[in-house]
Amino acid sequence: MSITGVGLTKIGQHWDRSLRSLAVEAASRAMEDSGIEGVDAIFVGNMMSGLLNGQENLGSLLADYLGLAGIPSVKVEAACASGGAAAVQGFMAVKSGLFRRVLVVGVEKMTDMTDSEDVSAALATAADAEYEVFYGATFVSLNALIMRLYARRYGLSEEDFGYLPILMHSNASDTPHAQLRFKIDMERYLGSPMISDPLRLMDAAPVGDGAAAVVLEGSDSGVEVAGVGMATDQIALHSRGDLLRLPAVELAARRAMEMAGITQKEVDVFQIHDAFSVMGYLNMESIGLAEPGRAYILAESGEIARDGPVPVNPEGGLKARGHPVGATGIYQLAELYNQIVGRAGPSQVEGAKLGFAINVGGTGSNVAAVVLRGR
Amino acid sequence: MSITGVGLTKIGQHWDRSLRSLAVEAASRAMEDSGIEGVDAIFVGNMMSGLLNGQENLGSLLADYLGLAGIPSVKVEAACASGGAAAVQGFMAVKSGLFRRVLVVGVEKMTDMTDSEDVSAALATAADAEYEVFYGATFVSLNALIMRLYARRYGLSEEDFGYLPILMHSNASDTPHAQLRFKIDMERYLGSPMISDPLRLMDAAPVGDGAAAVVLEGSDSGVEVAGVGMATDQIALHSRGDLLRLPAVELAARRAMEMAGITQKEVDVFQIHDAFSVMGYLNMESIGLAEPGRAYILAESGEIARDGPVPVNPEGGLKARGHPVGATGIYQLAELYNQIVGRAGPSQVEGAKLGFAINVGGTGSNVAAVVLRGR
Repeated sequence: MSITGVGLTKIGQHWDRSLRSLAVEAASRAMEDSGIEGVDAIFVGNMMSGLLNGQENLGSLLADYLGLAGIPSVKVEAACASGGAAAVQGFMAVKSGLFRRVLVVGVEKMTDMTDSEDVSAALATAADAEYEVFYGATFVSLNALIMRLYARRYGLSEEDFGYLPILMHSNASDTPHAQLRFKIDMERYLGSPMISDPLRLMDAAPVGDGAAAVVLEGSDSGVEVAGVGMATDQIALHSRGDLLRLPAVELAARRAMEMAGITQKEVDVFQIHDAFSVMGYLNMESIGLAEPGRAYILAESGEIARDGPVPVNPEGGLKARGHPVGATGIYQLAELYNQIVGRAGPSQVEGAKLGFAINVGGTGSNVAAVVLRGR
Repeated sequence: MSITGVGLTKIGQHWDRSLRSLAVEAASRAMEDSGIEGVDAIFVGNMMSGLLNGQENLGSLLADYLGLAGIPSVKVEAACASGGAAAVQGFMAVKSGLFRRVLVVGVEKMTDMTDSEDVSAALATAADAEYEVFYGATFVSLNALIMRLYARRYGLSEEDFGYLPILMHSNASDTPHAQLRFKIDMERYLGSPMISDPLRLMDAAPVGDGAAAVVLEGSDSGVEVAGVGMATDQIALHSRGDLLRLPAVELAARRAMEMAGITQKEVDVFQIHDAFSVMGYLNMESIGLAEPGRAYILAESGEIARDGPVPVNPEGGLKARGHPVGATGIYQLAELYNQIVGRAGPSQVEGAKLGFAINVGGTGSNVAAVVLRGR
């Protein structure tokens, strides 16, 4: 199984674009990149189109607007892991023998709402509506709780959380399709407003619009999809044994790596889900890049920089490249594909051949992992 | 591939129940029916949980509340065909070899909103938000447009649309899990209020809550899933060549029947998607049960009654058994399973061995078809 083409849009606040226009751009580019004019089925990764755009039935919408009406096409939702989950559905669809070639499109149009409270409420549907959100929790505040415990248990300073966003902004500064193309320093990080104490604005991925797409087919060309894995965890934080472990990340990563027959030590370039600084750190620890509480050192030391021994999110990650929620998992695959075929531009990691992506939904409750390997 | 167990809840306005409680009831019953205590993955068919229940991430929620957190679990959305689409995903998942045994759960909790306009707005997300809903169309009014053209082109009287709901109410009257367990006559049909001229309240499926589940596994026991098929059509009515054809129903049905190696003439019992009377008629015509404009005769004559030559929706269909949107496609499979194993109770069709279900999303824009065969 291979990815034979990818397409993506610039991420940003596209007030002049619609969801369908972004999705069609990414999908058309992916098919053009793959040298094809049609596919046998479409899987759309999206989380919030009902709430934010008054539009469900994205499967029909995209098949229609791609001129492909007739083929099977559905939406897959797994909170912020919707993109990765859609990719796994596409993988199974081809593997099942029912389809030869499928398109996986991730899209999220977050700026159709003028009230930021609406976006916050939509994001909170990833958490437990009855036992978390009902009591006033937002998605940001749940991550702030985790961050507070993390800081206390491992003795991190305020600065320690800044190293990851500072590196991500640096990476994004020369990435053409990134949303936040500017560098920040520690002063700016520490000066950014608290949005849910101790979580600062600069700890959080921005609200943005974007779409990414990949063509999956049973083929010996392109980049091999060497492994996929998914996993779930308890949806609400209060049910978890330890707030500072992400068992679904551990499980999904292990499943994908076992299918690919690799270990994390062999990976040349990583995509982690840094929707919040603390989530980025927990991701790295859960996949074995650092001991618990020590991930910040990887960022501080530059070990995860583009030219470091363990490159992570060389294009700027969710934090600065951008995080159009349901599209993120597909952006990750498109970034890895571009790395492996050597066309990642300024963010290119020298000799990248084995890539790994982890896409995390909710506060770690729904996770998709993918291993891509160059041929 | 087989269905080895099914479970379903009574359909109704369950003001005292939550989405998770309904889904867990159906899923637990299906696993108990199958004699198992766990599965390898879950696929949740649901359309509107974000808008109606403030809850996405149903994959995690259900895995968690079934005590199965850890396994892959995602939500699949294809408007009113979400249930059928989830079943097809489950089919592919097992067929792919990634999973041995999966649970497919359909659920919709429509009565959490106290304002019926909210439900109407949520249902309208199946249509084109920018080119239909923006201009004031509702899901009911789009079906009313189709009904008006149907009546005019084929010369149907008002009574002619009443034959299907009258039969469906009769079928539901002794179905234990049906929502509307009462008979209606032509006088009551004609006396029911116009909700979007010429569409009457009694032409429309009711708003209700419910959940249904099936266990799918590679097995020689149980009921064989002999064929599946999906298809899309243009999402908006104004794009269609002919409003009175449902090409996605034709395509999906043909795909499922070809996979099963059968024709429609061999089918013992049908499940059609009669969300509105005219949709029921168009369904029957699209799968070849009647010539265009003549489906009403099947209902009037009793040919599609339980003891007729072509039994359709013997338990009462969407109209009277009920239509908890994302669950409907799974209810259809559970009804067929119960028919084939001979435990459909009062609605039992004598000697039913081959069943066919068609689950229609939007105004025919996203369709899933399934053929079940007894062993």
